[in-house]
Amino acid sequence: MDHSPVASVEIVKMRHQIAAGATDVVAIEEPLEIQLEYSTATGRMVKNIAVTMRTPGNDRELALGFLFTEGMLSKRNQVLDCRNPAGDENRIRVVLHENMVPDLTKLARNFFAGSGCGICGKAGIDSLRTNSPFSALKNSLQVEASMIYALPELLRKGQWLFTKTGGIHAAGLFDAAGSLLYLREDIGRHNAVDKIIGAAFSDGRLPLSQYLMILSGRAGFELIQKAAMAGIGAVAAIGAPSSLAVELAKEAGMLLVGFLKEETMNIYAGKEHIKIIDKASKNGK
Amino acid sequence: MDHSPVASVEIVKMRHQIAAGATDVVAIEEPLEIQLEYSTATGRMVKNIAVTMRTPGNDRELALGFLFTEGMLSKRNQVLDCRNPAGDENRIRVVLHENMVPDLTKLARNFFAGSGCGICGKAGIDSLRTNSPFSALKNSLQVEASMIYALPELLRKGQWLFTKTGGIHAAGLFDAAGSLLYLREDIGRHNAVDKIIGAAFSDGRLPLSQYLMILSGRAGFELIQKAAMAGIGAVAAIGAPSSLAVELAKEAGMLLVGFLKEETMNIYAGKEHIKIIDKASKNGK
Repeated sequence: MDHSPVASVEIVKMRHQIAAGATDVVAIEEPLEIQLEYSTATGRMVKNIAVTMRTPGNDRELALGFLFTEGMLSKRNQVLDCRNPAGDENRIRVVLHENMVPDLTKLARNFFAGSGCGICGKAGIDSLRTNSPFSALKNSLQVEASMIYALPELLRKGQWLFTKTGGIHAAGLFDAAGSLLYLREDIGRHNAVDKIIGAAFSDGRLPLSQYLMILSGRAGFELIQKAAMAGIGAVAAIGAPSSLAVELAKEAGMLLVGFLKEETMNIYAGKEHIKIIDKASKNGK
Repeated sequence: MDHSPVASVEIVKMRHQIAAGATDVVAIEEPLEIQLEYSTATGRMVKNIAVTMRTPGNDRELALGFLFTEGMLSKRNQVLDCRNPAGDENRIRVVLHENMVPDLTKLARNFFAGSGCGICGKAGIDSLRTNSPFSALKNSLQVEASMIYALPELLRKGQWLFTKTGGIHAAGLFDAAGSLLYLREDIGRHNAVDKIIGAAFSDGRLPLSQYLMILSGRAGFELIQKAAMAGIGAVAAIGAPSSLAVELAKEAGMLLVGFLKEETMNIYAGKEHIKIIDKASKNGK
């Protein structure tokens, strides 16, 4: 069982010089240790793969999405089980099929990273880009601009943890008709994306080439990398993209939208995936 | 020389169904590899310590702040030099004094982390908390509420990269009178904090017990951990704190403010560091 994603804390609320005691709700941030169990010549082996600070909930999806987007899993039949060892809610063990030999060279990562980078431990700058099992697919997604404009409101309606805490990221996966498939919230934006991809992995829905993912915040390189791994056709962010995110989206043939609002958006890559674009005069900025 | 922190990209701006070409400015996101050079029995050794996705600029401070907050450096005289090896702007090498033996057990980290967590590779959940060299110091900071309310505006004035890109975090360090010491911007919020702490480390100003740090976003565990390592007296965030951030701030005796606006704030820990608090009736929420 997942434990609560929020906690009540006693605080002091101040307005000008006036202080008053109050109760506030904050998002839980706790470490999740992701373990991998697999067969070796000498028997079963358990290896700690990662620790991520996450908001509890959908931890199984988080672990699967993380391992998939890191390139260590590719199909759900590789996974026999996914559980909390000894009932410890802050550890999760992904148990691999005995025929499945994980590519632990991906773990031959001799250093770790600061933060927010998601490329932790990869052995050098050159190996930044993970290859997707779906990279050969052509992206044939076509979406209406009006559907994209509707996404922020649709996302907000589902962000119940944000409503409670005011401090948590969300990601949502929608089909081209605007129907919601998954919505996940987490204090780490990358975890919200991993949870979505892990859910799709678990449900056998990969690749996600006919789906759009909306992000409540900015679109950094790592989030676009995760989306590309899952073959996601389009990413739309409420916030700004980074330079490297734009480059990667172009390489991956993905639609990338930033600064998405209800009537306006910036298209950074893949404009051919939006149906019917009227061209305005150059002063239209 | 640091290279540019921003790049121009050609985009399509859409309003309703109308599209127009435009030029947009995005924040650069590029990997920085942090290397450590030190003496061993058999000669000098260079080890890759981390890769972080950062916005170029103040990379030297970033490397020093990162190594300090990870507990691998404690005094500036341990560092002989800090430079780009072979002129590579995306690598930085911190050269240690020959008498300085880095504690590489802190690198005996067999796994890496998802993202945004900053605890990458630490060998288990139990080792999450790094110990500050200044943890024995008593926090005697006293600040006026009015000074704290002034911080968001002071920070905004200095956020020139945010003004250009709309997508970059900032951290600022102020003294108790409200004078700005350092302001740093980065696409990774943790990098902005490392750059500030690295600047203070480099300038011999640690511990920062008489200073406040303001954060443009949320206050997660890792940022509070970094602040605690540097002995920072108070942290004020525009956004929400997490559960673990609140716990750590209490343990560290730090003032922690969240949801800071120009007239209101929530005090999550260390209210005794704010001068003169009038008590309101309980209905004051």
